[in-house]
Amino acid sequence: IPGLSESRPPPVIRYNMNNITATADPEGNRENILLLTPMARFYPEYWANLLRLTYPHELITLGFILPKTKEGNEATAALQKQIAKTQRHGPARDRFRSIVILRQDDEPALASQDEGERHKLANQKARRAVMARARNALLFTTLGPDASWVLWLDADIVETPPSLIQDLAGHDRAVLAPNCFQRYYDEETRRAEERPYDFNNWQDSEVAQKLAGAMGRDDILLEGYREMPTYRALMAYMAQEGKDEKFEVPLDGVGGTALLVKADVHRDGAMFPPFAFYNLIETEGFAKMAKRLGWQPYGLPNYKVYHYNE
Amino acid sequence: IPGLSESRPPPVIRYNMNNITATADPEGNRENILLLTPMARFYPEYWANLLRLTYPHELITLGFILPKTKEGNEATAALQKQIAKTQRHGPARDRFRSIVILRQDDEPALASQDEGERHKLANQKARRAVMARARNALLFTTLGPDASWVLWLDADIVETPPSLIQDLAGHDRAVLAPNCFQRYYDEETRRAEERPYDFNNWQDSEVAQKLAGAMGRDDILLEGYREMPTYRALMAYMAQEGKDEKFEVPLDGVGGTALLVKADVHRDGAMFPPFAFYNLIETEGFAKMAKRLGWQPYGLPNYKVYHYNE
Ligand SMILES: Nc1nc2c(ncn2[C@@H]2O[C@H](COP(=O)(O)OP(=O)(O)O)[C@@H](O)[C@H]2O)c(=O)[nH]1
Ligand SMILES: Nc1nc2c(ncn2[C@@H]2O[C@H](COP(=O)(O)OP(=O)(O)O)[C@@H](O)[C@H]2O)c(=O)[nH]1
Ligand SMILES: [Mn+2]
Ligand SMILES: [Mn+2]
Repeated sequence: IPGLSESRPPPVIRYNMNNITATADPEGNRENILLLTPMARFYPEYWANLLRLTYPHELITLGFILPKTKEGNEATAALQKQIAKTQRHGPARDRFRSIVILRQDDEPALASQDEGERHKLANQKARRAVMARARNALLFTTLGPDASWVLWLDADIVETPPSLIQDLAGHDRAVLAPNCFQRYYDEETRRAEERPYDFNNWQDSEVAQKLAGAMGRDDILLEGYREMPTYRALMAYMAQEGKDEKFEVPLDGVGGTALLVKADVHRDGAMFPPFAFYNLIETEGFAKMAKRLGWQPYGLPNYKVYHYNE
Repeated sequence: IPGLSESRPPPVIRYNMNNITATADPEGNRENILLLTPMARFYPEYWANLLRLTYPHELITLGFILPKTKEGNEATAALQKQIAKTQRHGPARDRFRSIVILRQDDEPALASQDEGERHKLANQKARRAVMARARNALLFTTLGPDASWVLWLDADIVETPPSLIQDLAGHDRAVLAPNCFQRYYDEETRRAEERPYDFNNWQDSEVAQKLAGAMGRDDILLEGYREMPTYRALMAYMAQEGKDEKFEVPLDGVGGTALLVKADVHRDGAMFPPFAFYNLIETEGFAKMAKRLGWQPYGLPNYKVYHYNE
């Protein structure tokens, strides 16, 4: 940020929040998108997918937060290389409006980023608290007065429809999650298949409510662990082949792999609790907080995005 | 915000959060202060007091949020007039780094801003939820990557020591509240006197804990109402004449009349809950949230700032 010269008066910016709309036609209304990605590893496929997004890039600001680990340093270097390519040397239509890169200041709770290690139940609370703090730091630091929407997109989402932003915003929902799947090669059928990946998009169940009720205030209920069956209705399992991509379901918990949020939901105060909030944490706690603020989250069982397969 | 020309590549900003310090010597370390004020009325004394602050103004960014009411329109006009005077025509050392003015987009729950009406118990929950949303909108929208500290200062704080920022930051606390008093003319003694004003700075009591325990999850416990005695230890009553201004007490609830917060506390996710959070709301809920994130709030019983007397 440049120093202010004595001759030029310092900037005074006035924003009428009524004029910052978030509508079903964001492109027509020239609405700004803040696309936020917490990033531990850089995947070229993630960047290639970003470049393919057809929403006008001059309306997209990118924000990244990377940990201060060896892995984070490598990812930062790789990211900066691609940014320089796109922003300096790429075609004008590829260039994003602006880009912010934050380096986290606290150490992540877990050094290993291996998928098996990450998903161990015992590691989840500490890990998700670290993730929540990283998401909050990124959000609080980058959300300015002119963003209409915040698109959360994990660094390992390597494939989305190019019209992702228009498609999601078209639903005009305060919080909306597509269904996150993973492609894999099935050794038995010898075919390319896909399977559900993100189990944090769910509708609550009585069993889960009772489990939570019996827990201490600081305990958290996690999804996708055999040791703790919740009988929640997972959006991951609601996908129906060939069915309407626009089909919506209300959700009580959401994941962060891909999530479109009206900026006003965050401005109202909805963040990612790094502590147990109604026995929920991070993105799932965010869904609960959005609900308490009067914003109902929804999901799209048949609209898919794809997670990298390690 | 100016459009980006095709010839100049869009800005890429990199921040190492480790380098954004918040220390006991903010002036020496050139730390940026974000001074945030929700404003329903404009008082010339508030602005005059701001101008008297000795912390280098070129390190202070001001952020305001005003309601979209007739009163809010008048306050905005008055504020803008003073800003123009200071920023365009005033001496260079008076000018602040930059200024953001937000106009709220939702209607406040109460039209009347009369002190008696405002303080009625029945009105408090809705009113404080509105205030919490206004504070969050202001915070989420103005906190950038380079702020070290956030100073919350209400629009009706008309007198503080000129060294307020240095004095408070000198304690190097994550969250620190001075004691907010009000000057008045005592008809009996015929002398200028002062009395406590902000009752939201307190230490918890067993009675209050029990009251909260018996309440529903959505109910809130309020301070300073005879109908609901909490027996909390109020900082307002801890002031001792002529005693050490640096004397600190730990707090469980804080007010927002004047409050210095390390920006990282907010970046971690601490906001002003517009809903019951541990049966607390707004600034008191914020204190609880800061604590849950590992940041202990403190107060200065003998260090005073003064609220306007209507
Ligand atoms: N800033 C930051 N990002 C992280 C950290 N750990 C993981 N991430 C990123 O956060 C997102 C979610 O993490 P990931 O490990 O993929 O979670 P999973 O796919 O749900 O197991 C991905 O974009 C990661 O690159 C961390 O410690 N700091
Ligand atoms: N933006 C905004 N500010 C408000 C609103 N109501 C009050 N304020 C401001 O918020 C602060 C606290 O409100 P105030 O009415 O003084 O509360 P009290 O002194 O605790 O009774 C003051 O700076 C007010 O000017 C509102 O509806 N919107
Ligand atoms: Mn992942
Ligand atoms: Mn006041």
